[in-house]
Amino acid sequence: MDRRRLFALGGAAGALGIAGVGGGAVGYGIRGAKADKRSATELRYPFRGEIQQGILTPAQDNMYTAAFDVTDEDLDSLRFLLEDWTVAAEQMTAGELVGGAPSANREFPPADSGEAWGYPASGLTITFGFGRSLFVDDKGRDRFGLAEKMPAVLRDGVPKFANEALRTDASDGDLLVQACANDPQVAVHAIRNLTRIAFGTAKLRWGQIGYGRTSSTSTAQETPRNLFGFKDGTNNIKSEDGDKELDKHLWVQSGDDDASDAWMTGGTYFMARKIHMYLEIWDRVSLAEQEDIIGRDKRYGAPQSVASPDADAEFTPLDFAAKNGQGDRAIDARAHVAIVAPEHNHGAMMLRRGYNYTDGNDSLGRLDAGLFFIAYVRDPRTQFYPILKTMAHKDLLTEYLQHQASALFAIPPGLGESDTMIGQKLLA
Amino acid sequence: MDRRRLFALGGAAGALGIAGVGGGAVGYGIRGAKADKRSATELRYPFRGEIQQGILTPAQDNMYTAAFDVTDEDLDSLRFLLEDWTVAAEQMTAGELVGGAPSANREFPPADSGEAWGYPASGLTITFGFGRSLFVDDKGRDRFGLAEKMPAVLRDGVPKFANEALRTDASDGDLLVQACANDPQVAVHAIRNLTRIAFGTAKLRWGQIGYGRTSSTSTAQETPRNLFGFKDGTNNIKSEDGDKELDKHLWVQSGDDDASDAWMTGGTYFMARKIHMYLEIWDRVSLAEQEDIIGRDKRYGAPQSVASPDADAEFTPLDFAAKNGQGDRAIDARAHVAIVAPEHNHGAMMLRRGYNYTDGNDSLGRLDAGLFFIAYVRDPRTQFYPILKTMAHKDLLTEYLQHQASALFAIPPGLGESDTMIGQKLLA
Repeated sequence: MDRRRLFALGGAAGALGIAGVGGGAVGYGIRGAKADKRSATELRYPFRGEIQQGILTPAQDNMYTAAFDVTDEDLDSLRFLLEDWTVAAEQMTAGELVGGAPSANREFPPADSGEAWGYPASGLTITFGFGRSLFVDDKGRDRFGLAEKMPAVLRDGVPKFANEALRTDASDGDLLVQACANDPQVAVHAIRNLTRIAFGTAKLRWGQIGYGRTSSTSTAQETPRNLFGFKDGTNNIKSEDGDKELDKHLWVQSGDDDASDAWMTGGTYFMARKIHMYLEIWDRVSLAEQEDIIGRDKRYGAPQSVASPDADAEFTPLDFAAKNGQGDRAIDARAHVAIVAPEHNHGAMMLRRGYNYTDGNDSLGRLDAGLFFIAYVRDPRTQFYPILKTMAHKDLLTEYLQHQASALFAIPPGLGESDTMIGQKLLA
Repeated sequence: MDRRRLFALGGAAGALGIAGVGGGAVGYGIRGAKADKRSATELRYPFRGEIQQGILTPAQDNMYTAAFDVTDEDLDSLRFLLEDWTVAAEQMTAGELVGGAPSANREFPPADSGEAWGYPASGLTITFGFGRSLFVDDKGRDRFGLAEKMPAVLRDGVPKFANEALRTDASDGDLLVQACANDPQVAVHAIRNLTRIAFGTAKLRWGQIGYGRTSSTSTAQETPRNLFGFKDGTNNIKSEDGDKELDKHLWVQSGDDDASDAWMTGGTYFMARKIHMYLEIWDRVSLAEQEDIIGRDKRYGAPQSVASPDADAEFTPLDFAAKNGQGDRAIDARAHVAIVAPEHNHGAMMLRRGYNYTDGNDSLGRLDAGLFFIAYVRDPRTQFYPILKTMAHKDLLTEYLQHQASALFAIPPGLGESDTMIGQKLLA
């Protein structure tokens, strides 16, 4: 097992003095029989490594993702912010207070807001990213002298898709912070304290709280269910897929992009879509039609090409040529699994890491709920946009969805032992 | 141990075929050393009993509380709704699908939306209540012929308090459903399916999601922290306090109220306040001032009357006469603990069961976050309003709070073995 994998799977937690944590972490699942939430709250993941934490890390139970806009136009202020964030993130992910020790001087506000004081690290990971507007803002200005280093992926931006209704104030931003943990209070504490540290330099633009991870990032995790009641993300990249596959689909390789080669090699791209789900309409669709729309059996998540679904059939490969009893294709060509399948998309795969959200209800009593879809990919231009375009036009599921926000960020590689800030190679 | 206590502490779970669950449940705490979330997700609480579940039940990690307005003016429709809700709630709290078995007829929509299919019961409890408008609505109408049975507590309503800014559409309602669980997806599933069942009869009026319970309802639970970073609810009623104390402070006694005596005896009142916390302002207050405002040490939650706080001092009784090194009162008379202390409120106590909330942020980047305060009391007119009035006028903490919603509901006793619906004695 090489160094990258060791970090990804949490095995390096031993370096922090926690023996035997890695295996327990990976084995954590959602059902009673497999669940071991005790080890889930005791988990601590190393903040530094070749890649950033929170990508291949076994998906935690809770997420709070936030974007910030830098309000100070001085490059040194941006550097100071990222240095301060780096110190605080390393402390919080280790289960410590911001500032390390409890405040000694009672005449000052405490460095840490305190609502997670004494709580275990709870598997907290904090992942940082840089948005297009950090390089060239909406007015075309290069505020920090970074325009030349802007990755082509950010320069090109996200194309428009059919039927989307994107809220600008809930989309994109200069800086991304994704906090994931097995205790929601620990995730909220992280975003709150980073927001507080940013005061005067950067402002919280939007935040999204999610629960019930909708994807597994490890083969040892059970596949969870989305709010349509289906197992979601079965066909996901997993951390166990090996470096060859991960390098092909997930990590930016040297030579991918001239402008950002020096600082993005070994990084990845974060693509989020806030997807409202029309639950009240979906709930009135027959079970047969629901399964035809998804292309899987609802109970076990088995492909419809499996004649007699059972608990073992979830991971049976999709067979798009298989016929059903009526002689029709068992899986409709417009079914969701067919639309997004790698074999129909030039082999494109993504690492999915999304969460369900429920943000209350409207005045008619309809839930404001859905999926905060997150994918990490080496290049969204080939791995994500074409699939989303096909989904928007052909996927039977699209009728029950509305994309309400979008976010694209460049995720630099992890911090070396002597790095003082995230994005060191971009900003130092 | 009598029958009521047995139910309250989960010991009756044995009746559902789960051995040894009671002790594990009560022992669940927030810190790594004591946490055992595995048993927390395996927990199942009996739906029926002398009292409703979700009151004395050891406070779970997640809450989704919702209020509904009945849109159909027919008493039988209301009865059918409550019967359907009762069946579904009993199934869901047992970890089953709504409808019991998986849908057999694929040509109909599934009875259960499915997003918790295969998930353990996760300690789910569902608690029901009746609001003032069910008896006499805002237009003064007695839609269901229940006006004569309206409790005096509901008739009198909640008085206005200084500095509140209540949102009508997020306050009160005809029917209350409080779902609590150790998995947020299980709580969301419960409210969603009850909302769906209500379609055509009642409409979701408001819903509030909470995390990080802010009170312990058992002496075996550790005291959690609120978003000001302080341990909260140390001085709470606990299920272990004994029937004499619980009958005095929590449960409605025969003779308390003529109009509702026949159906509310053994019930209680639910009082919620959505309290926005000005976190950004609080975070700029010195540690000394924060502690003076609360009246406790921030690290351990020890009363300021304890000269040298340590981990054992949290439950040391408050000594309001104690002096500090400067010869002043150690606990300011306007400190939060002094304002709400039973000894300053004619011995009034309440069972607190609130949760933290974070609902996003405003356009200035400030978190929309705070405490969804819930208290269960025998009579809010003597046990809650006077304290809230004093708080609004004198409490040093009030400057950092704004009450944004309010909800008062009558909570009938639990369901007997042959009852077909919650509130059987009111509606049958």
